[in-house]
Amino acid sequence: MIDERLKKQIEFIVEIDKLKHIFRQTILMNKSRNENDAEHSWHLAVMAILLSEYAAEKNIDVQRVVKMVLIHDLVEIDAGDTFCYDEKGNEDKACREQKAADRIFNMLPSDQAKEIRDLWDEFEERISPEARFAAALDRLQPLIHNYNTDGHTWTKHNISSDMIIARNQPIEEGAPALWEYAKKMIREYVDKGVIK
Amino acid sequence: MIDERLKKQIEFIVEIDKLKHIFRQTILMNKSRNENDAEHSWHLAVMAILLSEYAAEKNIDVQRVVKMVLIHDLVEIDAGDTFCYDEKGNEDKACREQKAADRIFNMLPSDQAKEIRDLWDEFEERISPEARFAAALDRLQPLIHNYNTDGHTWTKHNISSDMIIARNQPIEEGAPALWEYAKKMIREYVDKGVIK
Repeated sequence: MIDERLKKQIEFIVEIDKLKHIFRQTILMNKSRNENDAEHSWHLAVMAILLSEYAAEKNIDVQRVVKMVLIHDLVEIDAGDTFCYDEKGNEDKACREQKAADRIFNMLPSDQAKEIRDLWDEFEERISPEARFAAALDRLQPLIHNYNTDGHTWTKHNISSDMIIARNQPIEEGAPALWEYAKKMIREYVDKGVIK
Repeated sequence: MIDERLKKQIEFIVEIDKLKHIFRQTILMNKSRNENDAEHSWHLAVMAILLSEYAAEKNIDVQRVVKMVLIHDLVEIDAGDTFCYDEKGNEDKACREQKAADRIFNMLPSDQAKEIRDLWDEFEERISPEARFAAALDRLQPLIHNYNTDGHTWTKHNISSDMIIARNQPIEEGAPALWEYAKKMIREYVDKGVIK
């Protein structure tokens, strides 16, 4: 008999394989295809480790940030990826994602379900320095992708620099130095005439 | 002028995007395509968080394990993925990966290059309880994938249960309870006649 606890954990590990086929608007830097949520989460986790010195508050718990970014998109297994500039899609996003969180996280043993749910709520509500830094990375990463793919998503959907700045402003709150860097990337594309 | 340190860090973050198109022998659980190294690394990191209670030694540093699995395959950007049952490919694997480590990790500022290199060496040499647990996960994850895809890689390459057990034995050293679980999966496929 396999222990009930381990069985639940493995079933969850099998379930989340689905994150590998939830595709985002962002394309890979070699432009070969869209990025998926699992790859995106991995990239954010590495960034959390390497860029933690730029977090707005000193001495944040980097492990907490890493955990948050690793699990932050799991709800999209049920709720799908909602394009950040899609007004209609964003109306019921919170509701769809809450339902998804209820189903997916509760596959785990209750103590771990609670831990992951608390981390996800913390991330969503940006109620801690760790969550604000994680949110900053979640915006910076696609920005770096757009910068390195000739502004792919921006030009495809005709996104203006005002919209990009409004969307990415939370980087400032979580990591001011990274926001300065982000603004330079945006400004360069405005100067080049790629975005309005 | 962008700070030289941040510039190096961002260049590294851009470089490692290539991990998303290094493909493994393992296929996704829905059998749609082969898994890539970035997705695999993400999956291992989540497993490290959820399964740390099964590590052979109590009170391991989970953050260290997570960091290790997040960066363990970066060398494959240059060295490629070597199929674990490919004897010829494994002859010069270590040499190819050392060269890759020298190039890729040294893109980072020197303190971070050293940190990542030390973590990778620790993982490769399995010299700590954390590295042995990470190595156990690195074997368990494809095993779970094979179990959930009708033994895809095993049957495709005609791998016997003796070979599977020899390859995966390190799970025992890093996480004995997970090795018991792994052996049950292998035994089930032998009983079903899927593998010899």
